[in-house]
Amino acid sequence: MNQSIKVWAPGTVANMVCGFDVLGFALADPADEIEMELLQERRIEIAPDPVYQLPTDPDKNVAGAALQALLDAIPDEQVGFRLRITKHIKPGSGIGSSAASSAGAVVAANHLLQQRFSPDELVQFAMHGEKLASGVKHADNIAPCIHGGITLIRSIFPLDVVRLPAPDLHVSLVHPQIEVRTADARAILKQHVLLKDAIKQWGNIAGLVAGIVQNDHALIGRSLHDHLIEPVRSILIPGYEELKQRCLAAGALGGGISGSGPSVFMLSASAAIAEAVAHEMRSVFSRIGIEHAVYVTHISPAGVRTSI
Amino acid sequence: MNQSIKVWAPGTVANMVCGFDVLGFALADPADEIEMELLQERRIEIAPDPVYQLPTDPDKNVAGAALQALLDAIPDEQVGFRLRITKHIKPGSGIGSSAASSAGAVVAANHLLQQRFSPDELVQFAMHGEKLASGVKHADNIAPCIHGGITLIRSIFPLDVVRLPAPDLHVSLVHPQIEVRTADARAILKQHVLLKDAIKQWGNIAGLVAGIVQNDHALIGRSLHDHLIEPVRSILIPGYEELKQRCLAAGALGGGISGSGPSVFMLSASAAIAEAVAHEMRSVFSRIGIEHAVYVTHISPAGVRTSI
Repeated sequence: MNQSIKVWAPGTVANMVCGFDVLGFALADPADEIEMELLQERRIEIAPDPVYQLPTDPDKNVAGAALQALLDAIPDEQVGFRLRITKHIKPGSGIGSSAASSAGAVVAANHLLQQRFSPDELVQFAMHGEKLASGVKHADNIAPCIHGGITLIRSIFPLDVVRLPAPDLHVSLVHPQIEVRTADARAILKQHVLLKDAIKQWGNIAGLVAGIVQNDHALIGRSLHDHLIEPVRSILIPGYEELKQRCLAAGALGGGISGSGPSVFMLSASAAIAEAVAHEMRSVFSRIGIEHAVYVTHISPAGVRTSI
Repeated sequence: MNQSIKVWAPGTVANMVCGFDVLGFALADPADEIEMELLQERRIEIAPDPVYQLPTDPDKNVAGAALQALLDAIPDEQVGFRLRITKHIKPGSGIGSSAASSAGAVVAANHLLQQRFSPDELVQFAMHGEKLASGVKHADNIAPCIHGGITLIRSIFPLDVVRLPAPDLHVSLVHPQIEVRTADARAILKQHVLLKDAIKQWGNIAGLVAGIVQNDHALIGRSLHDHLIEPVRSILIPGYEELKQRCLAAGALGGGISGSGPSVFMLSASAAIAEAVAHEMRSVFSRIGIEHAVYVTHISPAGVRTSI
């Protein structure tokens, strides 16, 4: 039995424009590094984070909450975990930083426990981390972080995670260094929507899923529209409209707000287009004078992994 | 050049439970028969319907309106059509009776005109028939009637019809002989819906489309839920809840109201289950004392066709 392991837990993009609360995909980059040792007693020991000063108390740390849920499922076993998370996914960026910590921790623990839990069980455990982070037990970052590719949360109660193939798409992603709290981004949404707008939304998500499964880039592009959430949330991101228009003009198939923001992602059919799109992203936020980080990567078929 | 032709235009099931206004599929049976002759002058001549006494004035007949839209696209040509429609799809049944007349007519005309129009153009023409029938230019019966299989209307303006493969599924369908006017069925819908219910709906349509494209019957079954329309419209169909529960207990994957009703359809993985489901359908409406017609058929990969 392995006594220690290291895993990489990828950043993830939730919502995917028209798939609010149900779709998400895994990024090849960035990813958090999680080093873990198996202990012979029921204890969770989290090393201090030198950069972000995340809580080391397991009850207040998202990875700790996820691991505690896992331990609660095996109440009679004398095991525990010592872990160190090296964060490469900035907390608050909107690309699944808390999900990477939670999902990475339970996947690492499952390796040390000889794969005794199923992926669906791991998703359930990691959701306790999301609950701690945002107050809501959601899985739209957790599921793609664990499974890789694109995942659909068809239903959350009961949990039904549908794995979709990862189409061969490149991702440009910009993280403008402004704060958008998930709770605020959720609070500004209207509780009611017009049926006719909801119909447009499910026409698009149906087209997007058909495009993903059939690897039809044109259909994916035509379907990447959000008539409900983007008009409200984009107000929180300075320069959003200009950014989007310039990315589309540079050849992106489409894109939008990553999760609840502030990161914005764009999908492209080639690495060259993704680079051109990234150039527009840097240009817009440089002009507005907002510090930003840009990634050019792709949809990763793999989720949490044991090698880089 | 052929001077006459005969086509069969299939019945269709719009909405498909969670795909309100966007999904539809073609039935192998019943189908209307349309016999058409090419005329050398701009005239539409419709034979009287001996059973349903449908209007013979082309401006008041759905097939006439569709053919007129087609003629409007070729204003300089001296052509016209003489047609006779033998209705096997009862008007008002909720399985695309008007769509079959409209779509069948323009497909027949297109054969006589040596296929000069694309399928998307034919859908556009036939939608004029739907406008006449229901006041709304919708395509969720027209598109599967023309293309066969399952179709997604991703967007109506501009029209974007996405063809999905026809999974190998059997259909049981019951038409209780009660009147549900499309306009009434539409009027009772709420204009606003809860965002949380809309999210459930698009989780299900996403699952349904993934299940259809991947021919995953279990996923199709899990996704056939409608949290928005069925609770309102099912009130118009006596015995609906009992009917649905008994069909599911007999092994159906799922199903619901066909279009705006009153027909109800169920999908099943085998012909034997579809027969058992049909038995439940007959039993429920016999006990309530409502006359009914039952069909046991399958999703047809073909749309309007030139042979039976």
